[in-house]
Amino acid sequence: MVAAGTVLGMGTILAYGDHRQQATEVDAPESTPGPPFPVFTRQEVARHHSEADRVWVTYGSDVFDVTDFLELHPGGKSKILLAAGGALEPFWALYAMHKQEHVLELLQGYKVGELSPEEPPQPTPGDPYAEDPPRHPALKINTLKPFNAEPPSELLTENYLTPSQLFFKRNHLPVPVVDPATYRLHVRDARGRTLSLSLRDLKRNFPKHKVTATVQCAGNRRAEMNAIQNTNRLGWGIGAISTACWGGARLRDVLVHAGYKPSDEGHVSFEGLDKEPNGTVYGASIPFKKAMDPEGDVLLAYEMNGEELPRDHGFPLRVVVPGIVGARNVKWLAQISVGPEESKSHWQQKDYKGFSPAVTWDTVDFSKAPAIQELPVQSAITEPCPNASITPGELTVKGYAWSGGGQSIVRVDVSLDGGKSWHVAKLAGEEQAPGRAWAWKLWQLEAIVPPGTKELNIVCKAVDSNYNQQPDKVGPIWNILGVLNNAWHQVSVSVGED
Amino acid sequence: MVAAGTVLGMGTILAYGDHRQQATEVDAPESTPGPPFPVFTRQEVARHHSEADRVWVTYGSDVFDVTDFLELHPGGKSKILLAAGGALEPFWALYAMHKQEHVLELLQGYKVGELSPEEPPQPTPGDPYAEDPPRHPALKINTLKPFNAEPPSELLTENYLTPSQLFFKRNHLPVPVVDPATYRLHVRDARGRTLSLSLRDLKRNFPKHKVTATVQCAGNRRAEMNAIQNTNRLGWGIGAISTACWGGARLRDVLVHAGYKPSDEGHVSFEGLDKEPNGTVYGASIPFKKAMDPEGDVLLAYEMNGEELPRDHGFPLRVVVPGIVGARNVKWLAQISVGPEESKSHWQQKDYKGFSPAVTWDTVDFSKAPAIQELPVQSAITEPCPNASITPGELTVKGYAWSGGGQSIVRVDVSLDGGKSWHVAKLAGEEQAPGRAWAWKLWQLEAIVPPGTKELNIVCKAVDSNYNQQPDKVGPIWNILGVLNNAWHQVSVSVGED
Repeated sequence: MVAAGTVLGMGTILAYGDHRQQATEVDAPESTPGPPFPVFTRQEVARHHSEADRVWVTYGSDVFDVTDFLELHPGGKSKILLAAGGALEPFWALYAMHKQEHVLELLQGYKVGELSPEEPPQPTPGDPYAEDPPRHPALKINTLKPFNAEPPSELLTENYLTPSQLFFKRNHLPVPVVDPATYRLHVRDARGRTLSLSLRDLKRNFPKHKVTATVQCAGNRRAEMNAIQNTNRLGWGIGAISTACWGGARLRDVLVHAGYKPSDEGHVSFEGLDKEPNGTVYGASIPFKKAMDPEGDVLLAYEMNGEELPRDHGFPLRVVVPGIVGARNVKWLAQISVGPEESKSHWQQKDYKGFSPAVTWDTVDFSKAPAIQELPVQSAITEPCPNASITPGELTVKGYAWSGGGQSIVRVDVSLDGGKSWHVAKLAGEEQAPGRAWAWKLWQLEAIVPPGTKELNIVCKAVDSNYNQQPDKVGPIWNILGVLNNAWHQVSVSVGED
Repeated sequence: MVAAGTVLGMGTILAYGDHRQQATEVDAPESTPGPPFPVFTRQEVARHHSEADRVWVTYGSDVFDVTDFLELHPGGKSKILLAAGGALEPFWALYAMHKQEHVLELLQGYKVGELSPEEPPQPTPGDPYAEDPPRHPALKINTLKPFNAEPPSELLTENYLTPSQLFFKRNHLPVPVVDPATYRLHVRDARGRTLSLSLRDLKRNFPKHKVTATVQCAGNRRAEMNAIQNTNRLGWGIGAISTACWGGARLRDVLVHAGYKPSDEGHVSFEGLDKEPNGTVYGASIPFKKAMDPEGDVLLAYEMNGEELPRDHGFPLRVVVPGIVGARNVKWLAQISVGPEESKSHWQQKDYKGFSPAVTWDTVDFSKAPAIQELPVQSAITEPCPNASITPGELTVKGYAWSGGGQSIVRVDVSLDGGKSWHVAKLAGEEQAPGRAWAWKLWQLEAIVPPGTKELNIVCKAVDSNYNQQPDKVGPIWNILGVLNNAWHQVSVSVGED
């Protein structure tokens, strides 16, 4: 097994050719000599977002028609289309191989105009979401307010560590505006007093610990459940899952500092700074045992992928609970307390629980199901995309696989015929200690599609170190909350002429 | 949730009527006054094992034709048929409510003959299995030598703790003959010396610990895999799983005594006294972390269900590793050692591993799959039996559910229509601490079968505390070793006239 970066990144980088070694980094586009160009507004550019309407993009103040470049893009047509009608900068910021002189020269050949100076959009008065941060344009938005969005599947497994800007964002409420200088974390200690810790206290008084961990929303892949019977909840695709390297203080160290002992019991409750208009704050809890486990790796994280935690991910401090459902990884952390009961919050008591498909809103008894903590084994196909048209010959199928509770992925089976026959995929990912496999494995299968094939029904299923496997179909695990969809993921593609 | 004994045992006991309180225990049948009876050999009795041939049973030296009693049996016709053609004693030993005067009186009414005195069967000379212990006649035998047998599904969930005589037996080799007085357990200590512990040492020097734990063979339900493509391995039904209360010394305590520290790493290897003709002994290993975990509950057991460990279950000492596949629960324990590697035995390295359905004997690479330790979530239907004929009206569906690694069962869904619609079953079982749910849950669903129904396709699937679920179909998890079948269990029954 080799490092993910090697397998999954190199192809794209090398495809840009021999200039790689000698390339000079170029930080800003130069103005292009040439004829005077027509001037367009961003709205006009945005109308050119498909091959039928021509594909336009902007870089700096220049406008380019890259329609004829689509098939030539070394990273593939589908990826350049993600920027169609908008700016290239957010994508090039993620994929630094674009910042080379010859790439810019190539781009200038497609210039068709220049941008007109514009007014920035005005915020709606009284909008509680007015202070939400800017987001990456590639994100597929589920709801804008609160902001819930996922990376497109074409980008999801391009990197082992998901770039923070593309990391799925699951907000329940407006993003709080926090001044890091005055921010305090409140911890109820073992004697009932409240400790007040500044960011500086957390950084100076507790060792910094780094953990690479995948976070998954319980609603990941809900769209497939909604297709069977609508749950009227966020229709997540396969992207409500991402992986980052988190840095921060161990929750265990802070709890010990607050006087708790490993032999204590109960639950650790978290409250966020994100608030409903009535003052209700987001809250959740995890078992004390997980919080205190020296191998549990629960963090109070102030860093994500080596940088300061972004606002959408909980700036200045969030909980990261490896192996546990996203909902317990409380962002914009305000308060920690320990007690015999789970958090009383709506999100612990009346949401994020699993029910039988037989249970309806008329019969549901929330007290009967445990709050989701560790998640079951999961996998999905990120390439090709559903309904893509492919050609016979070599086909690369890519995806991710992950399991909760620190269980590692030991195998991914892939079928090209709807589950009749199977192939074993190649796995890539960082080495992880047994029982502490907090991060996903990326996987890849190289297959040959024989001429004459009309369509493929691609299926994947993963096996974790407990030899748990994924259920076959979505219907029998459908539930009113639309959570915990870990059925086989299926992608149908049509095969055209060679 | 109520104790299993209450729910699942009481019905049968009460069905014997009001005599229960006043009943006198009767230990031996009295000779019956009456006409002189014909004399039969046991072989002649054995021919009467079905309704077509009349159902005969023996008790003491009397022979009874109970064909006309079958429908009257309070425990159900299917259970009395288990004794057809043989002796009642082994069954009555398990179900003590039979040992009452009025039951014997009732039986005498069916007397048809007496047994002739017989010679006991002679052992085959040179048979390495000649010293194997006697077994309960209700067991369904897979192979006689070595002895591999499971309880019939009708009896499997009659008791929360499986009676030791009915507990599934999975022997790889002949049962060793061990003198408890001279028996020694050898433990390689942390300094490389060998400690020698007698049974008395183990009982006197280490606290006795009791754990109720389910043990499941990795091959449980292999028959369903063999039906798809024969693996040529033991065709276990749904009964290669049983539950007992085990008593013994904690392995952890013995390892600490031998100088090991909780921070040590690696694997704990076990060797049995059971030997192949070439001297190879049975062996297996578990992670050191599991062995040393204060909440791992790994035992060196000398007791089973409150009695001395039976010979088939490892007398005088066996390992019980709660939550872990049966193969690591080494019986007739001879030696314990700790090292950086897993056991080198065939059973650790070349068996009890899971593979993709795509892997064949030509392509298998045993080094690529981890040795099975914790097992995935499992459930099965014990009543009604496959192809039973039932009548419209009330129907009781019963079964078991269990998951490895201490995960508890949080729900069992039951379908009567092949998985189209589902019902939530009632669970029964002992309370277990979170993460230490070592024993199964028994479950029951009371359903109404509407008149006019022709057949039912009964399906069950369980959900564990990680919200892992069972895969739907056997085919996609089939593997060359025929292990780890935890697909939905399905039982089809026909519905006759009311």
